[in-house]
Amino acid sequence: MGGDKAPAEIVAGAVEASKDHGIPVILVGRPEDLAGLDTGGLEILPASEVIAMGDDGARAVRVKKDSSLVRAAEAVRDGNASAMVSAGNTGATSASALLRMGRLPGVGRPAVATPIPVPGSTPTLLLDAGANAECQAAWLAQFARMGSAVSTARWGIESPKVGLLSIGEEPAKGTSLTKEVFGLLSQDSTIEFIGNVEGRDILSDSVDVVVTDGFTGNVALKTLEGALRFMVSQVFSALTVTPEASAISGPVLELLAPLAEALDPETTGGALLLGVDGVCVIGHGSSSSRAIVNALRVGHEMALAGMPARIAAAIDAGPRETA
Amino acid sequence: MGGDKAPAEIVAGAVEASKDHGIPVILVGRPEDLAGLDTGGLEILPASEVIAMGDDGARAVRVKKDSSLVRAAEAVRDGNASAMVSAGNTGATSASALLRMGRLPGVGRPAVATPIPVPGSTPTLLLDAGANAECQAAWLAQFARMGSAVSTARWGIESPKVGLLSIGEEPAKGTSLTKEVFGLLSQDSTIEFIGNVEGRDILSDSVDVVVTDGFTGNVALKTLEGALRFMVSQVFSALTVTPEASAISGPVLELLAPLAEALDPETTGGALLLGVDGVCVIGHGSSSSRAIVNALRVGHEMALAGMPARIAAAIDAGPRETA
Repeated sequence: MGGDKAPAEIVAGAVEASKDHGIPVILVGRPEDLAGLDTGGLEILPASEVIAMGDDGARAVRVKKDSSLVRAAEAVRDGNASAMVSAGNTGATSASALLRMGRLPGVGRPAVATPIPVPGSTPTLLLDAGANAECQAAWLAQFARMGSAVSTARWGIESPKVGLLSIGEEPAKGTSLTKEVFGLLSQDSTIEFIGNVEGRDILSDSVDVVVTDGFTGNVALKTLEGALRFMVSQVFSALTVTPEASAISGPVLELLAPLAEALDPETTGGALLLGVDGVCVIGHGSSSSRAIVNALRVGHEMALAGMPARIAAAIDAGPRETA
Repeated sequence: MGGDKAPAEIVAGAVEASKDHGIPVILVGRPEDLAGLDTGGLEILPASEVIAMGDDGARAVRVKKDSSLVRAAEAVRDGNASAMVSAGNTGATSASALLRMGRLPGVGRPAVATPIPVPGSTPTLLLDAGANAECQAAWLAQFARMGSAVSTARWGIESPKVGLLSIGEEPAKGTSLTKEVFGLLSQDSTIEFIGNVEGRDILSDSVDVVVTDGFTGNVALKTLEGALRFMVSQVFSALTVTPEASAISGPVLELLAPLAEALDPETTGGALLLGVDGVCVIGHGSSSSRAIVNALRVGHEMALAGMPARIAAAIDAGPRETA
């Protein structure tokens, strides 16, 4: 039910993921809204309520107990599904996963981990990308372990390089929070900590996992997305500004297509909520059927890889945090 | 003496600014390092020491009392110069300006204000871009006033739109700091506060002044610069990947040249340190002579516009902060 293009594109993506990739999908939502759509014989789990994109996430989850998001999270909790995927309200998706699946033992706070596509290389995983605006140092130390586990499971990177987002390479640069986290990460033998990184490193292959608080991470993510979208639109408009430009734009756009494809967030399959006892994939609100197919593939893969158990093991190997 | 291309490019820019724009420039530094360079008859203020790019800013200013940065700041303090311009160590430039010129009355903390070029529109002024990693709400409220004063003086924007960098448009989004600042800015009748803005808004004409703490501002700035530089290099390499591509790349690059020019930080003239009792322009470390010319023009203009007095008046119109 969630996302700007729901339910049509969501259902189309689900049907395609099932047919072309053999992923067993359960649709969760209002059956009457599916009338007229080709659901490809997929199982439908009815849920009478809908959490809107503008709703307050945590509050909506408490009030709308028969919403598609809450029912999907319950299906994972009860073992009737292996992963939940949503393109709806991000806060409500996180809240329903957290409140229904629960936190993994020892996890301070769950974090949103967003893959940033890096053309010609594996994506950089940025976390927290927005779940916790204010963080304690111990939580960020756990984000590093959780992010490393995902980077290994999802892209096969054996020793993912972990960087701490700051405003200079020297350990003394940054805030009291980053300095404390720097100390914790330096002492963590279960990860490969490469030190502070800066915003410009996110799009490079010098770092695999970028750790930060949810406020800074969300600002960096939106700044990055804004800059890339801005450049693409500027290049396209420069190429069509005159008839002469338009005449050569065909082959140029063809040359730029692989770059646009590599940077397209729809191909990366969405963000993961890490630290909850189940797989939860958070897609863009603007997800098309193609984005949903990729999000379902990520959910499927992460469930097959036993992601929650891997995260639990990574957390268990480090200092406990139960606050 | 400061900057990756010092002293040759710095001196060349100074000579050009003097000859072509009638800006009276004093060169500050080691006279023996100028041997062999055409200094165009400019006045030379000798300073025997140099603060290196890697030095700790505040400490270097205390120790190297005869450095070019300290002497330049003293020249402004003593009325022998109207503005200082440096492409050297940013921390040391800020520290020398702060310690020698002093804070304007009532200013909580000086801030670095960096103009972000927006093609087809006036630049967006981002502050604090890195002077204060950790901030109090009252300081950010002052950044809004100082930024507005600069936006008006530098680009003639009568009522600059001020946005608070956060992670959602709603006032309740963000950290305890941003929520407190939101309250202060909402009550400030001397500025045009448009509410929270996000990273993607920086490159748009929907906002003129973006207010944030120095940590978030520096991360956003470097993320933005990194993304733009990345896209430019990716587009250029896509256009030269094959002989066929290279064959059409000439006219394409010509079409993209105005965009590259508009986004070039060298054309915006560098950042300003606001809140000190004098004009201080902070150029990129990589400044070429062209960047120096533009930085000198900004310093000249801001001195003619009486920028410190304007900032003082803007601060004076609001609640005092003397911490």
